[in-house]
Amino acid sequence: MLRVVEARTLSASSMSKIMQFVKHDFNLTPEQLQKYVPFTIEGYAVGMCSSEFVKVLVGNHPSVFTSDIKTKSLRFVPSVEAASFEDKTKALGEVNVALRDQGLIKGWRDELLPVSATFNSDPYMKIERAACSYFGVKAYGVHVNGFVRDPVTKRVTHLWVATRSPTKPTWPGMLDHIVAGGIPFGINLMENVIKECKEEANIDEGLASFAVPVGAVSYASLDEVGNLRRDCLFCYDLELPETFTPTPADGEVEKFELMEIGDVLDKVVEGCGSGGKEGYKPNCNLVLLDFFIRHGIISPESSQYLELLTGLRSGDCS
Amino acid sequence: MLRVVEARTLSASSMSKIMQFVKHDFNLTPEQLQKYVPFTIEGYAVGMCSSEFVKVLVGNHPSVFTSDIKTKSLRFVPSVEAASFEDKTKALGEVNVALRDQGLIKGWRDELLPVSATFNSDPYMKIERAACSYFGVKAYGVHVNGFVRDPVTKRVTHLWVATRSPTKPTWPGMLDHIVAGGIPFGINLMENVIKECKEEANIDEGLASFAVPVGAVSYASLDEVGNLRRDCLFCYDLELPETFTPTPADGEVEKFELMEIGDVLDKVVEGCGSGGKEGYKPNCNLVLLDFFIRHGIISPESSQYLELLTGLRSGDCS
Repeated sequence: MLRVVEARTLSASSMSKIMQFVKHDFNLTPEQLQKYVPFTIEGYAVGMCSSEFVKVLVGNHPSVFTSDIKTKSLRFVPSVEAASFEDKTKALGEVNVALRDQGLIKGWRDELLPVSATFNSDPYMKIERAACSYFGVKAYGVHVNGFVRDPVTKRVTHLWVATRSPTKPTWPGMLDHIVAGGIPFGINLMENVIKECKEEANIDEGLASFAVPVGAVSYASLDEVGNLRRDCLFCYDLELPETFTPTPADGEVEKFELMEIGDVLDKVVEGCGSGGKEGYKPNCNLVLLDFFIRHGIISPESSQYLELLTGLRSGDCS
Repeated sequence: MLRVVEARTLSASSMSKIMQFVKHDFNLTPEQLQKYVPFTIEGYAVGMCSSEFVKVLVGNHPSVFTSDIKTKSLRFVPSVEAASFEDKTKALGEVNVALRDQGLIKGWRDELLPVSATFNSDPYMKIERAACSYFGVKAYGVHVNGFVRDPVTKRVTHLWVATRSPTKPTWPGMLDHIVAGGIPFGINLMENVIKECKEEANIDEGLASFAVPVGAVSYASLDEVGNLRRDCLFCYDLELPETFTPTPADGEVEKFELMEIGDVLDKVVEGCGSGGKEGYKPNCNLVLLDFFIRHGIISPESSQYLELLTGLRSGDCS
């Protein structure tokens, strides 16, 4: 039974939990960011590394990396910087394999992502996904909100919620979007949405192609080893018919549930209050807050509403 | 006859026109902003004035205003700062009337707006709308996107476009939203949307109450006399039935037209290219760009898409 959902004016204490989480966990201060060394190619900062990591690269791999004292940046040596896309990818890949074999780069994925100054600029090379955060290279992803709308009021009433498999290495058992994934090299955003819809939730291409691009969130956060995670997540809305039920397809999701949107909002507020330890996988909260704003689930009369809007795009959104 | 609208990947030249307009006309640089003097109350900067205006206030109205040399700010003298809401409103009002009578404040509206540190914080006093930009006080408004959706694909196909009356003192004859207006003191956002819907387009309360709050845009721009306009516009989406036609109600609108969404996008790109001189009233372009992003009219594969997202909320969004 569907019921109408009106914009909710959140209490000051709920908004304070949300803003604390968004600001502290996903918006590093200029002082925190200053500790990281830019990794530049052709003058563009494509990454930001810890100074310890720069020491390892320059000390142990001087035929590939050098540090520029004047600009305080990490760079390729001139011969590598001048090399082709393929040769830069190869030089970087060999260093990363060595670092993996020493146990320094963990969680190898065997998945290559492009490295570029901005999302739409030509990539300089490819990088192993697990190495991204060590180099502080921006990573891009797609997150899909699968929702149901009331046919009369046109308001969003329910959202499909995934529970991650308890055996997943990252955030086991936490809540997740119906479909989400990183963007591998050589595939465009919509192709990726369609591919992930099939792989993760058995949503066929016909239905998945109704997904609408609706914006993005961006952030900088610290991972468990102190590396920078600089992510931009492209958000998609997929309106699903009431008769459709997604099913786990690749073993990464334990189950899917259709949850009332007000209950999802409660989960997000509680999750933010727990510092991202409960409820949704931490970065999903940002995509959901953007969804709540765009669909009038959170009222603009809520305190710090405007500040939240900018807080959701405070990473290097480019 | 409705047709399906898919996300359009804008050409680099179109996106460059848009970004040029958004960045140059609506996002002042830190250097440009530094020329303005903060107007502080209880330590909060509630406004930003030109140094010439500060000289007039402090020189001609020393019983009300003073300048703090240490913090380089404009302030009320202690007795006015300590006064009640009503007394601060009265003291400020008397100064503004004097400035109006000298011909210094132009375009008097006889409409009072609240002055506060942020939208949701308690206001310190009220200010005449025409004086807002002289003091650089943030002004808030509501802009309503009245649109029609394809019942099958659920995509937005058309937008209602207003043409401003040729006799309006500001932006005569330019295109506008179906409904838009400033937020007077003592009325909440949704009440204001409903009031403006009735006054401007003969949309009755029953239909207007379907308007959905969907976010906001913010900006800082310069007006024709060099004052700062610091605005936050709360955006609302109002899905209208195909059978509904708005009608001009208060003489400020010449006509309403239902335009294909792709044609609206063309108008916005052209308008941005003209520096806001053609097409839509300049600030409407920002609200429409936000609409195009949220409804998948502009594809995220367009260059500078992510930069546009943050560009739309780069004013003091609070």
